[in-house]
Amino acid sequence: MTQWNIQNIVSELQQARNEWRTKQKSLKDFGGRELPSKEEISKIMNDLCGILFPMRLGPHDLRQQSENFYIAHTLEKTLHALLEQVKLNLTYDDKSKKHHQSKEMIEDLAQRVVNDFAERLPTLRRVLDSDVIAAYEGDPAARSVDEVLLCYPGIFAITYHRIAHEFYTKDLPLLARLIAELAHSKTGIDIHPGAQIDQGFFIDHGTGVVIGETCVIGKNVRIYQAVTLGAKRFEVDDTGRLQKEYARHPIVEDNVVIYAGATILGRITIGEGAVIGGNVWITQSVPANSAVLQSSATKSQV
Amino acid sequence: MTQWNIQNIVSELQQARNEWRTKQKSLKDFGGRELPSKEEISKIMNDLCGILFPMRLGPHDLRQQSENFYIAHTLEKTLHALLEQVKLNLTYDDKSKKHHQSKEMIEDLAQRVVNDFAERLPTLRRVLDSDVIAAYEGDPAARSVDEVLLCYPGIFAITYHRIAHEFYTKDLPLLARLIAELAHSKTGIDIHPGAQIDQGFFIDHGTGVVIGETCVIGKNVRIYQAVTLGAKRFEVDDTGRLQKEYARHPIVEDNVVIYAGATILGRITIGEGAVIGGNVWITQSVPANSAVLQSSATKSQV
Amino acid sequence: MTQWNIQNIVSELQQARNEWRTKQKSLKDFGGRELPSKEEISKIMNDLCGILFPMRLGPHDLRQQSENFYIAHTLEKTLHALLEQVKLNLTYDDKSKKHHQSKEMIEDLAQRVVNDFAERLPTLRRVLDSDVIAAYEGDPAARSVDEVLLCYPGIFAITYHRIAHEFYTKDLPLLARLIAELAHSKTGIDIHPGAQIDQGFFIDHGTGVVIGETCVIGKNVRIYQAVTLGAKRFEVDDTGRLQKEYARHPIVEDNVVIYAGATILGRITIGEGAVIGGNVWITQSVPANSAVLQSSATKSQV
Amino acid sequence: MTQWNIQNIVSELQQARNEWRTKQKSLKDFGGRELPSKEEISKIMNDLCGILFPMRLGPHDLRQQSENFYIAHTLEKTLHALLEQVKLNLTYDDKSKKHHQSKEMIEDLAQRVVNDFAERLPTLRRVLDSDVIAAYEGDPAARSVDEVLLCYPGIFAITYHRIAHEFYTKDLPLLARLIAELAHSKTGIDIHPGAQIDQGFFIDHGTGVVIGETCVIGKNVRIYQAVTLGAKRFEVDDTGRLQKEYARHPIVEDNVVIYAGATILGRITIGEGAVIGGNVWITQSVPANSAVLQSSATKSQV
Amino acid sequence: MTQWNIQNIVSELQQARNEWRTKQKSLKDFGGRELPSKEEISKIMNDLCGILFPMRLGPHDLRQQSENFYIAHTLEKTLHALLEQVKLNLTYDDKSKKHHQSKEMIEDLAQRVVNDFAERLPTLRRVLDSDVIAAYEGDPAARSVDEVLLCYPGIFAITYHRIAHEFYTKDLPLLARLIAELAHSKTGIDIHPGAQIDQGFFIDHGTGVVIGETCVIGKNVRIYQAVTLGAKRFEVDDTGRLQKEYARHPIVEDNVVIYAGATILGRITIGEGAVIGGNVWITQSVPANSAVLQSSATKSQV
Amino acid sequence: MTQWNIQNIVSELQQARNEWRTKQKSLKDFGGRELPSKEEISKIMNDLCGILFPMRLGPHDLRQQSENFYIAHTLEKTLHALLEQVKLNLTYDDKSKKHHQSKEMIEDLAQRVVNDFAERLPTLRRVLDSDVIAAYEGDPAARSVDEVLLCYPGIFAITYHRIAHEFYTKDLPLLARLIAELAHSKTGIDIHPGAQIDQGFFIDHGTGVVIGETCVIGKNVRIYQAVTLGAKRFEVDDTGRLQKEYARHPIVEDNVVIYAGATILGRITIGEGAVIGGNVWITQSVPANSAVLQSSATKSQV
Repeated sequence: MTQWNIQNIVSELQQARNEWRTKQKSLKDFGGRELPSKEEISKIMNDLCGILFPMRLGPHDLRQQSENFYIAHTLEKTLHALLEQVKLNLTYDDKSKKHHQSKEMIEDLAQRVVNDFAERLPTLRRVLDSDVIAAYEGDPAARSVDEVLLCYPGIFAITYHRIAHEFYTKDLPLLARLIAELAHSKTGIDIHPGAQIDQGFFIDHGTGVVIGETCVIGKNVRIYQAVTLGAKRFEVDDTGRLQKEYARHPIVEDNVVIYAGATILGRITIGEGAVIGGNVWITQSVPANSAVLQSSATKSQV
Repeated sequence: MTQWNIQNIVSELQQARNEWRTKQKSLKDFGGRELPSKEEISKIMNDLCGILFPMRLGPHDLRQQSENFYIAHTLEKTLHALLEQVKLNLTYDDKSKKHHQSKEMIEDLAQRVVNDFAERLPTLRRVLDSDVIAAYEGDPAARSVDEVLLCYPGIFAITYHRIAHEFYTKDLPLLARLIAELAHSKTGIDIHPGAQIDQGFFIDHGTGVVIGETCVIGKNVRIYQAVTLGAKRFEVDDTGRLQKEYARHPIVEDNVVIYAGATILGRITIGEGAVIGGNVWITQSVPANSAVLQSSATKSQV
Repeated sequence: MTQWNIQNIVSELQQARNEWRTKQKSLKDFGGRELPSKEEISKIMNDLCGILFPMRLGPHDLRQQSENFYIAHTLEKTLHALLEQVKLNLTYDDKSKKHHQSKEMIEDLAQRVVNDFAERLPTLRRVLDSDVIAAYEGDPAARSVDEVLLCYPGIFAITYHRIAHEFYTKDLPLLARLIAELAHSKTGIDIHPGAQIDQGFFIDHGTGVVIGETCVIGKNVRIYQAVTLGAKRFEVDDTGRLQKEYARHPIVEDNVVIYAGATILGRITIGEGAVIGGNVWITQSVPANSAVLQSSATKSQV
Repeated sequence: MTQWNIQNIVSELQQARNEWRTKQKSLKDFGGRELPSKEEISKIMNDLCGILFPMRLGPHDLRQQSENFYIAHTLEKTLHALLEQVKLNLTYDDKSKKHHQSKEMIEDLAQRVVNDFAERLPTLRRVLDSDVIAAYEGDPAARSVDEVLLCYPGIFAITYHRIAHEFYTKDLPLLARLIAELAHSKTGIDIHPGAQIDQGFFIDHGTGVVIGETCVIGKNVRIYQAVTLGAKRFEVDDTGRLQKEYARHPIVEDNVVIYAGATILGRITIGEGAVIGGNVWITQSVPANSAVLQSSATKSQV
Repeated sequence: MTQWNIQNIVSELQQARNEWRTKQKSLKDFGGRELPSKEEISKIMNDLCGILFPMRLGPHDLRQQSENFYIAHTLEKTLHALLEQVKLNLTYDDKSKKHHQSKEMIEDLAQRVVNDFAERLPTLRRVLDSDVIAAYEGDPAARSVDEVLLCYPGIFAITYHRIAHEFYTKDLPLLARLIAELAHSKTGIDIHPGAQIDQGFFIDHGTGVVIGETCVIGKNVRIYQAVTLGAKRFEVDDTGRLQKEYARHPIVEDNVVIYAGATILGRITIGEGAVIGGNVWITQSVPANSAVLQSSATKSQV
Repeated sequence: MTQWNIQNIVSELQQARNEWRTKQKSLKDFGGRELPSKEEISKIMNDLCGILFPMRLGPHDLRQQSENFYIAHTLEKTLHALLEQVKLNLTYDDKSKKHHQSKEMIEDLAQRVVNDFAERLPTLRRVLDSDVIAAYEGDPAARSVDEVLLCYPGIFAITYHRIAHEFYTKDLPLLARLIAELAHSKTGIDIHPGAQIDQGFFIDHGTGVVIGETCVIGKNVRIYQAVTLGAKRFEVDDTGRLQKEYARHPIVEDNVVIYAGATILGRITIGEGAVIGGNVWITQSVPANSAVLQSSATKSQV
């Protein structure tokens, strides 16, 4: 029995790849898979969570008296692992953009990036503490800060986002995006790593939340499931191609609350202390301390 | 090359933790991580699913003639594993609330809780059977009850919910919440373990569904994706703090159907047999057998 | 200490199963769990992704010069594993429908199905390439086609869908559905394997998207999160039972864009080049090149 | 850089295999690796040890009150796994010997073999109990029967041997040999599965012990490390080929003790109650109750 | 098809266990498997090796600058894991001997044992360093101390022995024996944990070496494969039972060399600096600085 | 409770390491663990066995028609993995010997070594085929060549040896030794990678066999358990240090048989076709076609 014609399928797949590579002008000198690895980044993120919250997210058999031993050892190991991923990201960028930097230049840059990131960790912990408190105080169902830290998808998402954003600002968008998608897949919350989010941020339930790349979010903002902070429309250049990297998402000022399903589009400003009702659709700025609510017109009884 | 200053970062992280712990008055005598473990609970839930539906969710090499052997062995093992998690939850609560119960009292209580839970399993199986039938009969795309049990995220979510709710009613909210979030992460369906849901419940597609803590749902209710059964607003006490644990979510009576994206808020009642159309926004009670539909006002053609 | 009464619980669970089986007339001669295995299918899907995109989704240590070796070996192994799952699906169907086909007939059929599938792989690769380009060109935040392939949940979902759809058209709905739910759980995108989707399809963000079984989607369609392409109402037969397998979902023609949260229900047609605004609710056909936008009535300022 | 010439090496390896296969007349219709699997057999052996000694070699979390549940479930699963390996062994033999038995005949035979084996388990347990007692009573360093069962390589080896011997007597020499080599690799004790060993057998230390295929060993025999019970010389047939399967190893009667390093060769008899001293070399029968000791001639002081 | 009669086999196995338990007067109140765990001890031993030789036997990605972090974290974790095993051993002993010590007494004792052991680690490291040097200097084939540490089974065996001996002297023979058998299985070297061995000890090749419980070995002793340091005969008490725990194995003084296959039996003394030739058989003391060689009588040429 | 003083033990361990490093003049610039990895080499060896004997030692689900695909893919992957280990060995040697070769020189050398090794694989396969036939023809208990390949420890040992010897001759003694010890641990057969062994080599049972570094073994030699081919005495230089790397082990010519426990020491020659009896002790050359047997003097009957 001959079964399937493997050789034939392999050849046709090769031809399909060749067509693609010709079209995409894939660089010939990419020997191996020179891209950051999702699995590696997933492990690094787990370890970083343990480093930030050792007694809650660290290893199960950890004791408080050896927190520092655990952190020191894990940190050293994790920064080395991170260094590898940063180098892969930088090398990939370098080849894509044909900058032809030397291996040493890339190593130096990677070293600096990881060093800067490591020094930001204590600050990140403090900001995340403010997020935990915001969640505890903002949800009537929350019974303890530990429950929040262990169970709330919103806390998971903002932890990953704050780390991803560090790499976004260090010009490592691929690494940042991979981290963001790990959280998106697990929580259904899609925060672009470019979004700037101040302290005390809380997303409740979270599934379906989308926060765009150029969003700016102030202190103590609270958001519910299925909220979109998106772009209104995409600008195109003269050739009809999408323009990238311009401010196209909302600014949300301090103490704003946005209820479930609200859609806020474009570079508009939701003023300090405003309350946005559920399911509303907003494409223009909203003044401070105002409330935008769902009109009653959306239902009719039969 | 000195690379990164581990010792320094470790110290600063410790300082951040100390600040947090002082603020939170974390108990000094918490030696280890005395919290239920997500990984353990995940394994327990897998085993409970196998115990409830051995030929569909049990081990792949199981044969019908040895179902009972498998169930007896797995049940005994799983109840012991569960007992450990229940004790962790009770000890944590005891320390948090400074009740200073003796170890024996906690063990006795845990033993009773697990025993009661175990005796509920046959009843749970029967209720879940009613859910499977509801799904099969409610979805034109469903081809067999086996497909429903194997593939439908709504069945996964309600199975986890019915188990989580058992622990919620036994005053183990942390354990209950951890179970609920396992299902939320996997299905995008967020049912608070406090919700009371009667038999024959079916959620189709499910992503984005949110069902609040004090919801009461009758028999044979059908719900579609992105439905919210939420609180209208949160009550605060004199000091401005959120009040917790009062009835603030809808009552949904028997035979109600709620289409995708509907938002139903507050302690209102959706009367028996009512049909709630997609995307509508409801904050007042709806009489039995009525239909609330999307008005045509939400679209305008240009 | 007697602890729990295992024997008793086991008996009661058995009684519950017996009631169910009597009601469902479960076939007595099902010796083992003759159903496709989620875990096996998950491994097969991983390998198929590696076969389709070896340097991006294949093993980390793969080098370009041995792509074909890797593909040939993995393909051969994966097709055999797939053959097993196809046989399980066919045997299950055969027993359910009491067709009493011989083992040889089922083997022959399975062999043909897998063979046909294998020969479709190069075509699938080309169509998926068109999807990757659509994503890259349709999202201002996308920086490279590699980022799209590695990170975008929409690409993950359409890859799984295109494979699932192959099995749906080969009359293996259970296998198809299992594949679809793997993607649904990971991405929050729920595409029924029956949906017919042409090339250049892009879903951005994706959480909450639902695409029904009889949808027909043209070339270069772009869809955002929480879009529903659903059925308006379910038809019942004379006995009140739901009718299954008739065309009940929308037709979306080429070059349509559908923004976040739009709900499109029933066997209507969205004409070529139409733009459907966010959150709108559509139950009637829309002409080509028109735009349907959210009316301003949905918000009122207080 | 071309690195290594994979294609060339692959071709040359193929040529080497072809030469071998031509010489060995390997059957062309061997599609896959139709041989029992070492890994599978290793798992089966682990489970059988747990079935025989549940509270000592079974799973760590087993409790005495659920021994029978565990055994029943594990036994059913293990016998099915064993059935697969037996079928592989029988099919291999059938093809090698070109008997062309039908698949059904092989299945029937496998079923009978496994059934017979299963019914022998209680007897095996009783015999192994006699071995444990022999070890405890025969070693001054042994502190408890539990230490013997958990730690003694001699007990491990005899447990594996008694199981292997069951399959040897059922004409499954390959399966039997694979079991024997698992024990040989772990303990350094090489007992051919053909050896007949009565109850109360104890090997102390064990490394280097070799017991040949046609050995017959009585009750309560004790053996120390590096003892050989071997063949004196191999008989050849007229063509100079080794003759296989004739009695060529010693008979050791009840209550014999053989000290470390003794070599006993050929079809001779060591009479009941005899003591064989360390390092001696014996090629002729030894009468009952006699002692054969190392002569003083083997050392000379300088 | 009924296949095998599981229920029957289970009953007969239970009967066999009952007979054994009655005979052994197994304590009824042994609820679970209250014995140290081979798997746990194996992990603990791996970690202890890493703690003792971090850059050679520690984790692969360890760097010298974080040795102390790694050691501190691993030590804390490992001592807790060890504490559990020590408690299991002590509880088992307590039940076996019906001492009825309180749980607190056992915990205190375990704590003290582990503490004493931990403080011995730096001394153990220094002694093991002397063993590494002895191996390097004693084997012409050794090319570096790293090769010795990484590859030599004799070094593996003595490392395990020195740790096992610590527990033997702390009256934990079961734990000690389990450690010894891990090394025996891996190296073929069987050193009873009771043996007292001074620094600079080297075993070359090692397979088949047996060193008895009451051996006393001086400084810088070198031993080759298959050497036995055993008991000559076992003393029995008036009832004919073996006497245990009396000095019955050789004393080997400083600087002795014992070549392959030599057998030295009984409480005799091999004087300082003596050389024992290969394969010789010794049952009487040997003076210092003498040489005992194989007589020529053991061979005869034909 | 303070439990153990981790900090103190860590400091003392550091001091012990410092003393060792000072004494050993360990190079300061060894940043990480720059040594080949046992785990990696173990995986590489497994893959090489699969490459050499795909249908017997390759993956279980391999089919004959895709042997070459499997080999090509695995070979490419394995050679890269091997390249890493070779570089680690070369770098370690370079640092130890302070040769200060450039990274490029080491890479080039490693590349050449792996290339040469890869081209030797077909030859290795042919030689190993001769070993399999020798085992089958030399053991009356062997029932098929497949049983030999799957079960015989002697075949495992010679396979590993032939590969280890390749690296020994390429001046990579550490890598070679690590491979040899993997086989030694598993089989109890200790062949130094330096030993030169011609085709058709068979070791039966094997436990305790030791074959020294400078042995030269001819064609079709057969050896039994516990045979030593060792050095008679070690030569020392003027300073009393052992001399390394001179011919000090036996030459065994074609067609020699050496029975169990024989000890052959020094640079002597065992002439073609000689038979060496069990347990004999030989330190002088033996003429061709002679037989050396155990004298009867070694036993005395009482």
